[in-house]
Amino acid sequence: MAHKSAGRSALARVLAVLETFDQDNSALTVSRISKRSGLPVPTVYRIVAELLEMGLLERGSDRRLHVGVRLWEIASRAPRALGLREAAMPFMEDLHAATRQHTQLYVLEGCDALVIERLSTRSAVTNVTQVGDRQPLHATTGGLVLLAHASLHMQDSFLSAPMRAYTPNTPTDPAELRRILANIRTRGYVVCDGYITPDALGVGTPVYSPSGDVIAALSVVVPRDGAQPMTHVRALRLSSRGITDALGKPQVRHGPQNIRLFPFVNNEQL
Amino acid sequence: MAHKSAGRSALARVLAVLETFDQDNSALTVSRISKRSGLPVPTVYRIVAELLEMGLLERGSDRRLHVGVRLWEIASRAPRALGLREAAMPFMEDLHAATRQHTQLYVLEGCDALVIERLSTRSAVTNVTQVGDRQPLHATTGGLVLLAHASLHMQDSFLSAPMRAYTPNTPTDPAELRRILANIRTRGYVVCDGYITPDALGVGTPVYSPSGDVIAALSVVVPRDGAQPMTHVRALRLSSRGITDALGKPQVRHGPQNIRLFPFVNNEQL
Repeated sequence: MAHKSAGRSALARVLAVLETFDQDNSALTVSRISKRSGLPVPTVYRIVAELLEMGLLERGSDRRLHVGVRLWEIASRAPRALGLREAAMPFMEDLHAATRQHTQLYVLEGCDALVIERLSTRSAVTNVTQVGDRQPLHATTGGLVLLAHASLHMQDSFLSAPMRAYTPNTPTDPAELRRILANIRTRGYVVCDGYITPDALGVGTPVYSPSGDVIAALSVVVPRDGAQPMTHVRALRLSSRGITDALGKPQVRHGPQNIRLFPFVNNEQL
Repeated sequence: MAHKSAGRSALARVLAVLETFDQDNSALTVSRISKRSGLPVPTVYRIVAELLEMGLLERGSDRRLHVGVRLWEIASRAPRALGLREAAMPFMEDLHAATRQHTQLYVLEGCDALVIERLSTRSAVTNVTQVGDRQPLHATTGGLVLLAHASLHMQDSFLSAPMRAYTPNTPTDPAELRRILANIRTRGYVVCDGYITPDALGVGTPVYSPSGDVIAALSVVVPRDGAQPMTHVRALRLSSRGITDALGKPQVRHGPQNIRLFPFVNNEQL
């Protein structure tokens, strides 16, 4: 791969190093980072040394590098991730206790639905998701709910690109998808019947900010056989409303720390 | 505050900007970031513009800046945070279902216990913790378990600094703490009776890597009145063992993605 460090800012090069780590490549050597980022080995060495010193990278017992827990700590202050998650968690736990299947919380990030939280049991139906995963907007409950409330510009640009069919049921026709999105806006929920895996049915609803914007999507994924989607729609709506209320309320923090407000932030991308 | 950008590397300045955000300051203006970081306003403007472009910072509806969900996504690949959390979650859910109180997972980060995961209910006993919080090593179950298995050098340096008494029960005498740490190593658990809040009792156990190193601490926090610590010790030990087994096993990933191994990484700081 051609080296392409020239013209990139110092910060862009650091980000390029960090971005070489993903779910399937969570521990890397300097030479792998160089290959994956297109940065020369000496540049990678220098950046890695600085990131290690700051704790943003760590070295495993096998000497390979991985993302440091210090970066996770800084990132845990992202209100659209853990702030939202903290408000949503008690409601997600109730939903999860009722279904004993997958309960998931998504936000829009770029052109994907990013999974912020997921509760599951080992016996639950097949599900492709992990926390931190990106899911396709056209084939998942969270993705469709977020796309339905995205800007027209974003909808047009997303629907004009080719979309992958994960199963024979995955909607990939732009006209059909526009109908699905319109229905989500009118009815306030979506049912995805075998869109991403043949044996699973997903039900999703939007989560509103206290000022009325859609900031997230909440879903349950259950086995397709014998699923009763409308029961889940009702439970999801109650939970979504609870999360909105929790986001609007000042949260009391007990103990040594004092009262603080939960950050609420609009998603300007939506 | 005196400006102290001189002599700091480009990356150190970016980190200084990101570090101005914390749980109580999750949305900031450029001038607040400048004040908190000691960097000149024009420097902060330039760094913030680049971080916004990369999605590592976002701007809220009130125009204030906050940590972007993109940073959280990169950080979600930290094996000591979400990798560990993913392996631990099913066991933590079982513990939480049994106690309906707080269940927490900690790792050592610098000289603090960092809370990686926390399950709770609204009716649970007073607890000061949130995901992403740092807790003092001498006054919390997770902290004491991690300190007990830290290097002698780290124990000595931690115990030689003054320690805060959160309640009359908080151990702050180095000799007493050394006895507590020795007991943890011998018995394999700790009971903290009102160490950090007067009404709560915590029970904690170490979590071992498949190769036998202590990589995390698992705890439950219950009301002090009527608590039966040994019941919790037994449940915690079973859960810890389950987490170790889960870390050692290849994890099957269903659906479009293929089989992958869960990263396991030693904590070299311990």
